[in-house]
Amino acid sequence: MKKYVSELLLIPGPTPVPTEVALAAAQNMMSHRSGPFKKLMLDLTAKLQKLLQTQNDVVILSSSGTGGMEAAVASCFSQGDKVLVAAIGNFGKRWIKLAKVYGLATEVLEYDYGQAVDPSAVKALLAKDTEKKIKGVFFQMNETSTAVLNDVEELAKVIRAHGALVIVDAISGFMASELKVDDWGLDVVITGSQKAYMLPPGLAIVAVSEKAKKAIETSDLPKFYLSLQAALKQGAEGQTPYTPAVSLIYQLAAAVDLLTDEGLESILARHERLTKAVRSALRSLGLKLLNENDRTASRAVTAVYPPPGLSADEIRKRMKNDFGITLANGQDELKGKIFRIGHLGYVDPKDVLAAIACLEIILSQLGAPGIQWGKGVQAVQDVLARK
Amino acid sequence: MKKYVSELLLIPGPTPVPTEVALAAAQNMMSHRSGPFKKLMLDLTAKLQKLLQTQNDVVILSSSGTGGMEAAVASCFSQGDKVLVAAIGNFGKRWIKLAKVYGLATEVLEYDYGQAVDPSAVKALLAKDTEKKIKGVFFQMNETSTAVLNDVEELAKVIRAHGALVIVDAISGFMASELKVDDWGLDVVITGSQKAYMLPPGLAIVAVSEKAKKAIETSDLPKFYLSLQAALKQGAEGQTPYTPAVSLIYQLAAAVDLLTDEGLESILARHERLTKAVRSALRSLGLKLLNENDRTASRAVTAVYPPPGLSADEIRKRMKNDFGITLANGQDELKGKIFRIGHLGYVDPKDVLAAIACLEIILSQLGAPGIQWGKGVQAVQDVLARK
Repeated sequence: MKKYVSELLLIPGPTPVPTEVALAAAQNMMSHRSGPFKKLMLDLTAKLQKLLQTQNDVVILSSSGTGGMEAAVASCFSQGDKVLVAAIGNFGKRWIKLAKVYGLATEVLEYDYGQAVDPSAVKALLAKDTEKKIKGVFFQMNETSTAVLNDVEELAKVIRAHGALVIVDAISGFMASELKVDDWGLDVVITGSQKAYMLPPGLAIVAVSEKAKKAIETSDLPKFYLSLQAALKQGAEGQTPYTPAVSLIYQLAAAVDLLTDEGLESILARHERLTKAVRSALRSLGLKLLNENDRTASRAVTAVYPPPGLSADEIRKRMKNDFGITLANGQDELKGKIFRIGHLGYVDPKDVLAAIACLEIILSQLGAPGIQWGKGVQAVQDVLARK
Repeated sequence: MKKYVSELLLIPGPTPVPTEVALAAAQNMMSHRSGPFKKLMLDLTAKLQKLLQTQNDVVILSSSGTGGMEAAVASCFSQGDKVLVAAIGNFGKRWIKLAKVYGLATEVLEYDYGQAVDPSAVKALLAKDTEKKIKGVFFQMNETSTAVLNDVEELAKVIRAHGALVIVDAISGFMASELKVDDWGLDVVITGSQKAYMLPPGLAIVAVSEKAKKAIETSDLPKFYLSLQAALKQGAEGQTPYTPAVSLIYQLAAAVDLLTDEGLESILARHERLTKAVRSALRSLGLKLLNENDRTASRAVTAVYPPPGLSADEIRKRMKNDFGITLANGQDELKGKIFRIGHLGYVDPKDVLAAIACLEIILSQLGAPGIQWGKGVQAVQDVLARK
């Protein structure tokens, strides 16, 4: 006899996929050079612009988010250009690696894990660049590895005042909290399909400002498949320069219809509510969060230390084996030291209520002191039932 | 009242997807860092090696085929390296563009559309390179734009004798006709999911020889998302360096099981049979093929001129409107001058019988002289019923 356990994926991507979106992938293939496909792409792009609150061009690359990040680096800069990376975790380090791969003179502002970028530090650093050698500043909207949300609006403000391009990895952050591409003046914004879009990985959706397009026109770094210039040119006609991931495009169209029906306000509110619920529950169980600052708390994922003496990996393993709940490990230096609970995309209050209840059981079975069953659940209930 | 027309996609990719494969995309997402995903990847890779008849490492990139081509260029060479491209059509030109983007000294052997590469010309050219400056030779197994099959075995032989890397775009050719990666000594072989694999676009499956891996170790060209070095390193553990297109991986696993059950011999035989049937039918209707040489005939797609005075685009348009059959346009200079019939992947004798019958109707309605209904169909029947 095999015990029946259903699967609940609470990681910051890939996130669970609604059935309507999952089945949209199974539609018949069509020619990506046909009129109906062009129409699909143009309609989809217009809807994506609304979600991104932008009139900038939006292109869809058939790659995961990292491909979108590389596209921004390789497409917007030229040999010898200087750039600044403000890094607060593992994905910040990816910006540094990418800039270095392309030989850009890379200045780095690095923070301890759990910290957000301090906009005044960026401002001070840019103020020293009186010759305007720094052509672009890279950062994360949401650093998935540490569950920290940056103040994108404020960062963009100081970068725009300097004149450098504002390049934001919003892969895990977009739709988990507010992102106003046009109002905040963001030049290149990279998002990814396997996050709040609620579909499988494989697409990077990138918004590109007019200012960025000027830099793209003159960029001399090598690129082909990930060329934003090629994607923008073809995108204007509802086309892609190379064969796109057609089934994922079908799914993106289905998901964007669901998201548009729900409305941005509601999408943001449910991420906010689940974040508060998870943080409140973990605290009520006496656990220490990696980022205790509620203002910079990620609305996509929460990173937490195990109770003293307990193993984060053992907690994750039992959550998976006993209850079918997948939680995320730490990354990099945080591997095995923390665990992370995703509350991004197609995640529901019922999922969080159940997950916290299961966590209470596992923690007390592992001998964590002072775990009172139902206490974390009550904290969730308290947030959910609050108006 | 809307006339009911079912859709039949006869283009050289994306190809039709079997229902079992289509629905495999709808499976629940899982963590790509989990044990079960690693197992899935390792099992899948072993099966791919069998289909590719290789013991070389096989990696899966989340990109369409062009991303795989770029990965080969950026990963196997270093600044200033000299390479040779033998180009017989639009995708040959893509190799030239890619080599130039990365600043490689690029020698080109170019052929008229409809011709295959002459291995003795490659041999003669390489013989002149006594200092062994040419580090790699790029060509297509099957040039999709002109429906021409190269003699990969013979080309590989002359290139290996010289010592350069043998780099084959087998995206549309693989499984349409024989490809023996190890026996023929192919160093980098790029295949794509939306072809004979029978799944949607979005994955490039790349086989890499030990010799290529040595070049990859020392390559200094910029790459990150498309790095074969990173893919090989992670692939050994059943992992990918960046988030993979999980749903397409599910589909690849499902498709590879179907293909393995069918067996390579049968897969090759059905492509051979459909190719003969289509070519015989078109000839019986008096149409001129772009490539009249049966030995170099693509087993994936057939390119054909319209009867004199008729428009290729009008034929395609009517086939689509009246019968729901999508045929492919020409590419590049051949745009509007030819049309192409795909017989690649999940295409069946019934599809070809119906398509030829519909083509007979359209051609005679458009006033093509001497079209006798059933004559093309008889030619197909003749090939299919022949033992």
